[in-house]
Amino acid sequence: MPDLEQRVRQSFARQQFMQTLGAELTAVAEGSVEIAVPFNPRLTQQNEFVHAGVITTIMDSACGYAALSVAPAGHEVLSVEFKSNLMAPAVGDRFVARARVKRAGKTLTVCAADAFAIKDGREKLIATMLATIINQPIPNP
Amino acid sequence: MPDLEQRVRQSFARQQFMQTLGAELTAVAEGSVEIAVPFNPRLTQQNEFVHAGVITTIMDSACGYAALSVAPAGHEVLSVEFKSNLMAPAVGDRFVARARVKRAGKTLTVCAADAFAIKDGREKLIATMLATIINQPIPNP
Amino acid sequence: MPDLEQRVRQSFARQQFMQTLGAELTAVAEGSVEIAVPFNPRLTQQNEFVHAGVITTIMDSACGYAALSVAPAGHEVLSVEFKSNLMAPAVGDRFVARARVKRAGKTLTVCAADAFAIKDGREKLIATMLATIINQPIPNP
Amino acid sequence: MPDLEQRVRQSFARQQFMQTLGAELTAVAEGSVEIAVPFNPRLTQQNEFVHAGVITTIMDSACGYAALSVAPAGHEVLSVEFKSNLMAPAVGDRFVARARVKRAGKTLTVCAADAFAIKDGREKLIATMLATIINQPIPNP
Repeated sequence: MPDLEQRVRQSFARQQFMQTLGAELTAVAEGSVEIAVPFNPRLTQQNEFVHAGVITTIMDSACGYAALSVAPAGHEVLSVEFKSNLMAPAVGDRFVARARVKRAGKTLTVCAADAFAIKDGREKLIATMLATIINQPIPNP
Repeated sequence: MPDLEQRVRQSFARQQFMQTLGAELTAVAEGSVEIAVPFNPRLTQQNEFVHAGVITTIMDSACGYAALSVAPAGHEVLSVEFKSNLMAPAVGDRFVARARVKRAGKTLTVCAADAFAIKDGREKLIATMLATIINQPIPNP
Repeated sequence: MPDLEQRVRQSFARQQFMQTLGAELTAVAEGSVEIAVPFNPRLTQQNEFVHAGVITTIMDSACGYAALSVAPAGHEVLSVEFKSNLMAPAVGDRFVARARVKRAGKTLTVCAADAFAIKDGREKLIATMLATIINQPIPNP
Repeated sequence: MPDLEQRVRQSFARQQFMQTLGAELTAVAEGSVEIAVPFNPRLTQQNEFVHAGVITTIMDSACGYAALSVAPAGHEVLSVEFKSNLMAPAVGDRFVARARVKRAGKTLTVCAADAFAIKDGREKLIATMLATIINQPIPNP
């Protein structure tokens, strides 16, 4: 497992909210990360669709980890801000967020993500995100 | 309980994801809604702060319900998109999102929300949102 | 010239602000539009870079026309909202915004755009946008 | 004229694009700035409304200068990103953008702005912005 993947997997494992959602880290590469979450009634809104907040959360985490995969050594990342467009109801068996770095600077990284609903093996684009992430030096222990 | 409050409370009660987060609807008025969530380790990210996705979710729901409180009869609301700025770490005993309608149109409503961390009885602004919500006719049964 | 191109070119020609900027419509296809603007000192901010507002304007117009290229007959489009990330200073001889439709719905269309600075024939990504556009029936004359 | 106002006015005077728009700096205080632009047919879109790009530009500049008014000495500011919601057509004699700092950090500042159309002396809210600005040390000469 390359260093960058280990770095991302270790941080993901410490995010208790990912476990609360049932989210898994399904792909990690330099500058791109994929996170998936299976349908669960505990994640729904009033119409039994998965809540926009869940889809946004996995896009946000995928963007953050895509940024972390290219961040300078000794740094961690924090979300500065993001915009999420919900384009279709989150109806499906499983939901996948795929993020990629658009530009990595010394201080700020810009990432984009798309989210897909998977139903009967077919993917449908349901949401998209544009996010700004900041690199922060990890304080010495 | 006025009609608009009932309308918002009934929809909120059907959002299972709000229960998963431990969120409560703490205030409803015409054009403004407040949602609160107590700290819980199940909601944290890698630094033990509450995850940006949780804070964003309660701001999104508060915006949606602020829009619903002024929507035409026979309509429900869906989030079209939102932008969330995370301005300080979500550290505290309790987190509150307060949303208000900025403009209600026939089809689209624009809402703004702020989120606060409450620690030892003091509030700190930690995040802010700008959101677009669409009114949709409720299909006849 | 196909109908959709004519529809976009006629509307563009009526946008006096595009002429004020010196902007040109350099490509129109179904679901994608490109707008370019040459450097001009009249468009600069305090550091002699082209102003973020100029780059945002050509991305916004490119998104709007990409949406118009797929809008139902008898409709025009209006920008509901957009987010613009300025990733590098707008330094160059010429600036190009390229927009594409991500999802076209009956009422709302979501578009993404990237903007590039061209200097000595080389393109550099300087900005990116995510935009929501609404279709509106053209009132009868 | 206090230092902070001078700092803002000097930078504004160097923005040639503000002159191209006919924009004026109408108020400067610590953490808040107002910019106005009179109607001019050169600023219009296809319906003879003022272009969304113009309204966005004055909100962006007002946000940047609100951030500059509280930035550490020896620093200038750059827009990282912003989101603009266009809530009503820009129809009027004059347009005003009012920005205020929501949170000023060491590196990043978050500002909000509203834009109003003024017609026959009455103001109407037409747009709103949420923006992220970065402080950058001014290079030594």
